[in-house]
Amino acid sequence: MKNEKITSRSDDFAKWYTDVVNAAKLASYTSVKGCIAILPNGYAIWEKMQNELDKKFKELGHVNVQMPLLIPESLLNKEKELVEGFAPEVAWVTMGGSKELDERLCIRPTSETVFCDFYKSHIKSYKDLPMLYNQWCNVLRWEKETRPFLRSREFLWQEGHTIHSTKEEAERETKQMIEVYKWFHHDILAIPSIIGLKTEKEKFAGAEYTYTNEALMFNGVSLQCGTSHYFGQKFSKSYDIKFTNQNNKEEYAYQTSWGTTTRMIGAVIMVHGDDKGLVLPPKVAPKQVIIIPIGNDEEVINLSKQINQKLNENSVTSSIDLSEKSPGFKFAEAEVNGIPIRIEIGKRDLENNNITFVRRDTSEKIIKNKDIDIVKFTKDLLETIQRDMYSRALERRNALTFEAHNLDEVKEIMNKTPGFIKACWCGDEECELKMKEIKGLKSRCILENEKLIDDKCVVCGKESKELIVWGIQY
Amino acid sequence: MKNEKITSRSDDFAKWYTDVVNAAKLASYTSVKGCIAILPNGYAIWEKMQNELDKKFKELGHVNVQMPLLIPESLLNKEKELVEGFAPEVAWVTMGGSKELDERLCIRPTSETVFCDFYKSHIKSYKDLPMLYNQWCNVLRWEKETRPFLRSREFLWQEGHTIHSTKEEAERETKQMIEVYKWFHHDILAIPSIIGLKTEKEKFAGAEYTYTNEALMFNGVSLQCGTSHYFGQKFSKSYDIKFTNQNNKEEYAYQTSWGTTTRMIGAVIMVHGDDKGLVLPPKVAPKQVIIIPIGNDEEVINLSKQINQKLNENSVTSSIDLSEKSPGFKFAEAEVNGIPIRIEIGKRDLENNNITFVRRDTSEKIIKNKDIDIVKFTKDLLETIQRDMYSRALERRNALTFEAHNLDEVKEIMNKTPGFIKACWCGDEECELKMKEIKGLKSRCILENEKLIDDKCVVCGKESKELIVWGIQY
Repeated sequence: MKNEKITSRSDDFAKWYTDVVNAAKLASYTSVKGCIAILPNGYAIWEKMQNELDKKFKELGHVNVQMPLLIPESLLNKEKELVEGFAPEVAWVTMGGSKELDERLCIRPTSETVFCDFYKSHIKSYKDLPMLYNQWCNVLRWEKETRPFLRSREFLWQEGHTIHSTKEEAERETKQMIEVYKWFHHDILAIPSIIGLKTEKEKFAGAEYTYTNEALMFNGVSLQCGTSHYFGQKFSKSYDIKFTNQNNKEEYAYQTSWGTTTRMIGAVIMVHGDDKGLVLPPKVAPKQVIIIPIGNDEEVINLSKQINQKLNENSVTSSIDLSEKSPGFKFAEAEVNGIPIRIEIGKRDLENNNITFVRRDTSEKIIKNKDIDIVKFTKDLLETIQRDMYSRALERRNALTFEAHNLDEVKEIMNKTPGFIKACWCGDEECELKMKEIKGLKSRCILENEKLIDDKCVVCGKESKELIVWGIQY
Repeated sequence: MKNEKITSRSDDFAKWYTDVVNAAKLASYTSVKGCIAILPNGYAIWEKMQNELDKKFKELGHVNVQMPLLIPESLLNKEKELVEGFAPEVAWVTMGGSKELDERLCIRPTSETVFCDFYKSHIKSYKDLPMLYNQWCNVLRWEKETRPFLRSREFLWQEGHTIHSTKEEAERETKQMIEVYKWFHHDILAIPSIIGLKTEKEKFAGAEYTYTNEALMFNGVSLQCGTSHYFGQKFSKSYDIKFTNQNNKEEYAYQTSWGTTTRMIGAVIMVHGDDKGLVLPPKVAPKQVIIIPIGNDEEVINLSKQINQKLNENSVTSSIDLSEKSPGFKFAEAEVNGIPIRIEIGKRDLENNNITFVRRDTSEKIIKNKDIDIVKFTKDLLETIQRDMYSRALERRNALTFEAHNLDEVKEIMNKTPGFIKACWCGDEECELKMKEIKGLKSRCILENEKLIDDKCVVCGKESKELIVWGIQY
């Protein structure tokens, strides 16, 4: 049964998205244009995401730091491409207290410049390298059109900034981190994603190359979910970051950066959500189980409490809804919030020694004897849900991934069922721009390890050089 | 033996403090005036602090959210006292991209206004209350003089903002949270602190009253470490936050806020540090044990690795220093970083089946047979260190806490050994200001539950109303 507060996903996807964000109380607009408040339900998901990523970063030797929020204009200006990429969309602080500042400061849109400035004064020898720094923070980009989680002026993210003594090591890091994002999406968020290189036009301003992790939403629109940039010596030359190498010679250092944001909450909504609301993969669900006793029977309440306690003691996050609302209301609330498993316990069922497990992802009801090993059954079911959610998302993506060999095919696909389009490309930016005329298609990434599906460019028919995944960008 | 990079604490306390921050690599200045970079060693301590506090907040029913960084000027201006308190020290954003903004936005110096704006549009009935929100974020205050952790333009903190349907509940919350800060300082940071009310002059701009948690540094200077404010209906009236109560009548809501900051890292340094560097209480030490094998003997290395693994498997954070530096260098490094326990393992000792534990806080060496239960011994020793650090800090504070009955006594104490001065006060702001003429003494807090030590005001000799703790403020 669909939730009354939520527009049907098939009727109006954009409206459905906003309705889910509101109904599940994930975020709300504020008086500050383009800035959202992340509400408890939304922030708790972000905390789960942070925990998983932070643990992985640390296992790989990264450490957390905190650099300043403000960047002096002169510092920002040192890297030409970066300035051109970001200057149009930064917010400028021009007054401190009642005084006009000598130099205006921008609120970080990203922190390469600040890290470079730090590295410049802290690195002397190859012995100081690598530095594998990450920070969790807020950034600000003066976007015109905004949507909760997907694009807002301020957002939360992590930005890794590493610096190395060799090209090889820095390139290994770049690759390693995009693989971390892929692992995170596949194993934790149950979102199948594709990784590949960005084209020259789409890469990060100032990077030598950018790896991206691209996911396909339920409606066939694609979302960039994490990028990893290799800078080579570009920034170290602009910011004069030199070190003495093992041969006692001065050399410019090699750098990377990589980041993921609260946008991933939007991805989870748009890949897994349905007409009843949010559907959370168990691994990022702040509550994995909700127990709803039906009626006020003492035995029912006691058993509910016992099960709740046992689950929590065994690292399943469970809670029990003892409020005075009706069971139907409680069911709908658990559904809209995307809690993976609902356990219903009623007097009549108990007479038959039964309790009922309801899967959020499939609505399947599973009736079990109350004397089974409930912890084990619940844990197994959470794993099954996690796995099934991934499989369904993968199936959906496969169904929405098409191959095209010329512009007519591209148009036909896009008119029927938008999704990922695999098509070959000659490498010319002109052809890339031509694709944009078809419903705004952009190159999402270059597939490095797949065979070309055509020897001709999908646009101009000249010799093809790359296999590209194209898609509509959020 | 003192560390060569560190000025002696008794020679120049301020210089000693900066030297410890640098030598232990906790923070560094940046190109952004008044803003620091919190380095891995410093940030890891902050993470330990966050974990402890966040767990406690959640146990008490609080949830985390994230509100916008920027506050429109008109929103800030709604609470007169707050504006007057903060407007002189905020940074203003006046440009977004290349456009001048219609209304300037300040970077949050604190978020009461933003939370009020949110509450206004989200609260309708008593059933929506209480809302027990907290956020971990950065804030900015345009300070003139800055010192790492103690006072910097940008700093990290948590700010709790709660809203209630009754005065009683809100006042209980205010009290509860200052008790949480006291617990945190006493039990986790090993810092004895005093809690009490701020005077009218010193309370938070816009609060009805402010509880503060005041700690005394090794040099006798006092530091405010956490405050909890009761707002009553002041903000709810300014921001028009009404709810329908149980009698179906409209009523203004009751609010609190409470916060602690990265300044607590400064407190830990200044209460516990010594001439060798940082001394960390085991409960906030990112590394609790460092194992230093002496020489390259295989048996020594193997045993070191075994112990390291066993400790880590049993929730003691341990690491092993296998670098090529000399043992003496490694000892000094472990000391400067404040690691609570150093385990030395050498070939000669091993021949006698011995290993050596060295306490960072006392430099005491404890030789033990290698076959003892090392996990248990280490855990017990960490507890002892935590307890002893608290006791020593308390002793120091007691030795620096004085009573005074007139201004001559105050002057004599301050000329000899600055510290906390307990003295009675008539309640007049004029007398409070008069005290400031003596080395800048300020009222730190009103002691609510202690008996007056004098029936006369320490300044004017009129009838005393409050017992005050006075001190020099960082």
